[in-house]
Amino acid sequence: MSFPSPLAIASRNPGKLREILAICADWPVTWLTVETHEGPWPTVEEPHDTYLENALAKARTVATALGAAALADDSGIEVDALGGGPGPRSARYAGEGATDRQNLETLIRALAGVPASGRTARYRCVAAVVWPDGREVWAEGHCEGTLLARPRGTGGFGYDPIFVPAGWERTMAELAPEEKDRISHRGRALRHLRELLEREP
Amino acid sequence: MSFPSPLAIASRNPGKLREILAICADWPVTWLTVETHEGPWPTVEEPHDTYLENALAKARTVATALGAAALADDSGIEVDALGGGPGPRSARYAGEGATDRQNLETLIRALAGVPASGRTARYRCVAAVVWPDGREVWAEGHCEGTLLARPRGTGGFGYDPIFVPAGWERTMAELAPEEKDRISHRGRALRHLRELLEREP
Repeated sequence: MSFPSPLAIASRNPGKLREILAICADWPVTWLTVETHEGPWPTVEEPHDTYLENALAKARTVATALGAAALADDSGIEVDALGGGPGPRSARYAGEGATDRQNLETLIRALAGVPASGRTARYRCVAAVVWPDGREVWAEGHCEGTLLARPRGTGGFGYDPIFVPAGWERTMAELAPEEKDRISHRGRALRHLRELLEREP
Repeated sequence: MSFPSPLAIASRNPGKLREILAICADWPVTWLTVETHEGPWPTVEEPHDTYLENALAKARTVATALGAAALADDSGIEVDALGGGPGPRSARYAGEGATDRQNLETLIRALAGVPASGRTARYRCVAAVVWPDGREVWAEGHCEGTLLARPRGTGGFGYDPIFVPAGWERTMAELAPEEKDRISHRGRALRHLRELLEREP
């Protein structure tokens, strides 16, 4: 196995951080997180038009700043009625610095009048590990679903309160955390990434 | 350092599991959790009258069943107006199998009419690691506070929606997860436990 340790998590989002730690609990690594690390923590940006470029940019920034391998993910929601948008711009759909709630309300308004049959969407995630020497590994995961007109549930984050995964009747925000992690785009991407790291020479 | 690895977390509570993983992210161990482990997972009980006995009992059960060292915690709320209760019985205050909400409502009713000045309380936590060979290490942490008459906030679990930590105006359920972890009984107990593990021969 070739898991880098320590491995930094390039996210300041406490919800995402906890999700990653739970999904990757069985990775043989010591984690560096903004919450337990002493000393300055780099600020990362996601300026690109693809998940992969954003994930790699975030992981590279943290790997360079801390001198340790870094794990980053970038994810978004692809709404068929919006031509696949907002996609990699999901976190700033309502504008730069938008909150989850503002983004969610913007998407609900954008879909007003769209019938249930046209409310298909998918969450997509690319997770990447970058080593300080420049080596990179990444993997993708997605989760198909449909979008409600009104939010339900308090779990998760992002667009979870209106996203009903295929095969479920509850929204992602109504699932227990371990149910979400089993089927989510992030869970799938990180488990795929784990397989790639296990195979690394 | 003498951190056992892998280290099992003796809890099926997804909220507690995520809290422990976030607080202990920098422990140099590979975690075994009910969510990522394949195969059966033991059921633990907390039948005792002290946090320490309950924590050790839970860790011993899991360490024996999995053949790996196990980390468990037991915690409770000690309400001065109730003579220090419910204490180690906090999780079953409204009866065996009670939900967080039922326990919370029972405590709110028990304190009806108690003036603000008499609503002092503390959360207490004992965290323990037990090795399969019987070695044991444990540590304690607590967090002083006062109890509101009405719940506020959706974070955390247990009695968090009415517990206002000393020096704060928000309830534990209104704190960001990393704010809670910095001051909580569980955060303090686990960081103390980490120091003991580092010193272990």
